[in-house]
Amino acid sequence: MFTLASDFGSPYPAAMKGVLLSTADGDPRLVDVAHDLPRQDPRAAAFWLKFVLPEFPPAVHLAVVDPGVGTDRDALVVVAGDHAFVGPDNGSLLPPARALVGDEVGEGDGETGEVDDADTIDAGLSVFAVDAGVPRSSTFHGRDVFAPVAAAVHDAGVGNINGLDRLEPTDDHVDLRLPEADVGDGRATGEVLVVDDFGNAVTNVPGAFLDGRIGADLRVETPDGTVIAPVVETFAAVDPGQPLVTVGSHGYVECDVNRGRGEAAFGVGPGDELVLTVV
Amino acid sequence: MFTLASDFGSPYPAAMKGVLLSTADGDPRLVDVAHDLPRQDPRAAAFWLKFVLPEFPPAVHLAVVDPGVGTDRDALVVVAGDHAFVGPDNGSLLPPARALVGDEVGEGDGETGEVDDADTIDAGLSVFAVDAGVPRSSTFHGRDVFAPVAAAVHDAGVGNINGLDRLEPTDDHVDLRLPEADVGDGRATGEVLVVDDFGNAVTNVPGAFLDGRIGADLRVETPDGTVIAPVVETFAAVDPGQPLVTVGSHGYVECDVNRGRGEAAFGVGPGDELVLTVV
Amino acid sequence: MFTLASDFGSPYPAAMKGVLLSTADGDPRLVDVAHDLPRQDPRAAAFWLKFVLPEFPPAVHLAVVDPGVGTDRDALVVVAGDHAFVGPDNGSLLPPARALVGDEVGEGDGETGEVDDADTIDAGLSVFAVDAGVPRSSTFHGRDVFAPVAAAVHDAGVGNINGLDRLEPTDDHVDLRLPEADVGDGRATGEVLVVDDFGNAVTNVPGAFLDGRIGADLRVETPDGTVIAPVVETFAAVDPGQPLVTVGSHGYVECDVNRGRGEAAFGVGPGDELVLTVV
Repeated sequence: MFTLASDFGSPYPAAMKGVLLSTADGDPRLVDVAHDLPRQDPRAAAFWLKFVLPEFPPAVHLAVVDPGVGTDRDALVVVAGDHAFVGPDNGSLLPPARALVGDEVGEGDGETGEVDDADTIDAGLSVFAVDAGVPRSSTFHGRDVFAPVAAAVHDAGVGNINGLDRLEPTDDHVDLRLPEADVGDGRATGEVLVVDDFGNAVTNVPGAFLDGRIGADLRVETPDGTVIAPVVETFAAVDPGQPLVTVGSHGYVECDVNRGRGEAAFGVGPGDELVLTVV
Repeated sequence: MFTLASDFGSPYPAAMKGVLLSTADGDPRLVDVAHDLPRQDPRAAAFWLKFVLPEFPPAVHLAVVDPGVGTDRDALVVVAGDHAFVGPDNGSLLPPARALVGDEVGEGDGETGEVDDADTIDAGLSVFAVDAGVPRSSTFHGRDVFAPVAAAVHDAGVGNINGLDRLEPTDDHVDLRLPEADVGDGRATGEVLVVDDFGNAVTNVPGAFLDGRIGADLRVETPDGTVIAPVVETFAAVDPGQPLVTVGSHGYVECDVNRGRGEAAFGVGPGDELVLTVV
Repeated sequence: MFTLASDFGSPYPAAMKGVLLSTADGDPRLVDVAHDLPRQDPRAAAFWLKFVLPEFPPAVHLAVVDPGVGTDRDALVVVAGDHAFVGPDNGSLLPPARALVGDEVGEGDGETGEVDDADTIDAGLSVFAVDAGVPRSSTFHGRDVFAPVAAAVHDAGVGNINGLDRLEPTDDHVDLRLPEADVGDGRATGEVLVVDDFGNAVTNVPGAFLDGRIGADLRVETPDGTVIAPVVETFAAVDPGQPLVTVGSHGYVECDVNRGRGEAAFGVGPGDELVLTVV
């Protein structure tokens, strides 16, 4: 099985599907994850892939959000248990891979930098650099590099890719940790990781910050101003159009509006800092 | 086979796919119906599901448009012949289920209310309430309640779900009937059910109202004003940009524009009342 | 295997999927190509289908961009080697079919006209007109005509469709050639074929025009004004927000912006003429 994720919109992902179906053995299943991931944003890709891919059975995950396409950034294969991730070396593959092997120390300072290699190996991940040869194009490595490599990984079997000519184990790759919030008693400082399709502003503050706070009011300070909203378990606990704070299905604190858009009501977007205070 | 429909946008539906593939036996097929159903609108969901799901062979239909997520609304399984529908108890599952068993008395006053239970049973439907236990989240029951139940229904077999622990037959559930138009000779009063992606305003007036009227003019009175447009068989019967009235593929009267948006030309949206008069 | 492409948006394509799965033998695979092809634009459909479908293994390609639905335009089946295309007779099926059989003489004056029949046959294509009978609707032939025909072609086998009752070989069908650019030494006159989801303006000037020009500046004259931009191999060769000209993955010259929208920076849209001059 392959999953496919990208920021390609349409119809470019279909070219990757064609390559996988033409190249891989044994009539493999293809499952679309999303092709409208936030454009050219490896951190947002990491967040969403970490959220959704651990739900899947073992698969080859082709995940291409690639602002550096055509530059000399590497192509990577990251192996986490029975799962393999194939995509560009920009850090986006590491958080979902860590989540799959249960590496709970997966959050850092939010900066992208050279990996502390022992970290990756300690986490039970194997990382390979891909010899991409001379791709057909310099602008569509999803079709020309990553899909063929994903097919080769699939055909060899995830546990058996050491023998693949084009793959070389590496400890020289970009790491990416989602930024860690600073959580105290009744006060947390964090930031908005992503805004989802509903307009919910998902922060990096762990849901545990709200344990025992249902019904309390929370002051949310943003670069744009301050909103006071109740801590609730369900959207329907407030009237339509009213703001609320809850723990989302990702396990993080979200700033939302019942049947409305939290990003607008709270005046925030991805990367904005937030101070949350129980009042 | 599973079909999947929701108003979740992206990438939340992929989490449901992951759960189905991780949970259900025998490498089942997944078919996406739509994940951009009108948001939090069970009536529009009912319309679209009734339109599209009867085309499918027997399947477990996971259909989640769920403004009440996290409240005490039930989770339901509705069985119609060899098909099963899994989703929230807000009425959205009933019209497609009735359509599959050929219940032509499927339209009512458009209000959502307690079901007249004899109606449902007479129609040949079986309805089960789900014991949801304590879901992993209070905001994403598509992943945490409905997908696991759909997998259990699939594995048991639609004809064999009486034995499932978590399911209890019920006659205490919400019904929903699409509103019935008032049709006379040459005059019909109805409303707009949905506006589709093309901007076509689909009404609840049955297509039979236009039998023998091809070529006639129709006066369409809306809250916004009056438009007179010809009754035609095909969009191309009028010039690009011109309004027209025709019978859509759903069997209902539509207010459209050739290569344009009917909702704008007729000044209508979902729920707006219309009076149609042959002139 | 079926691929599905259309300009239907959502959820209409699901009705075609249902018909294919209800009708075709042997649990066939369905692969979505795109359902947001530029609306009612057979030329843009031809471009995208030509780009993506040759990546696929042999399949029945259901491709419905159909501004003439309900008129007396024919339904066609076009056979190219082991591939079959099913859709309306408006020319959109011919460029991808020619690409699959390696017909490099596929570009013409961009006008849609009656085919020069010898051309089609010389190219190794077979074209059949479909007896559509009386369709269930006059507005949704994707569901009511093309999907059932695609299922019949699939079940018969692409090499074996001469025996199908509803198909009649024809040499009376619309042809469509993508417009050919006028390319000289250091100067090309062409036009914008499509603008993709990234905002890249894809022209009909073959990539070979830029051979050996990496690093040069190109003057791009449009109906809207003039932009001078460097010829580069990768988007990242210019700063974010800066214009560039490169060869896209389709093999054509593109007018782009690194992390921005080329259509806006160059002031162009589909069909606009361009003069490109190396400076």
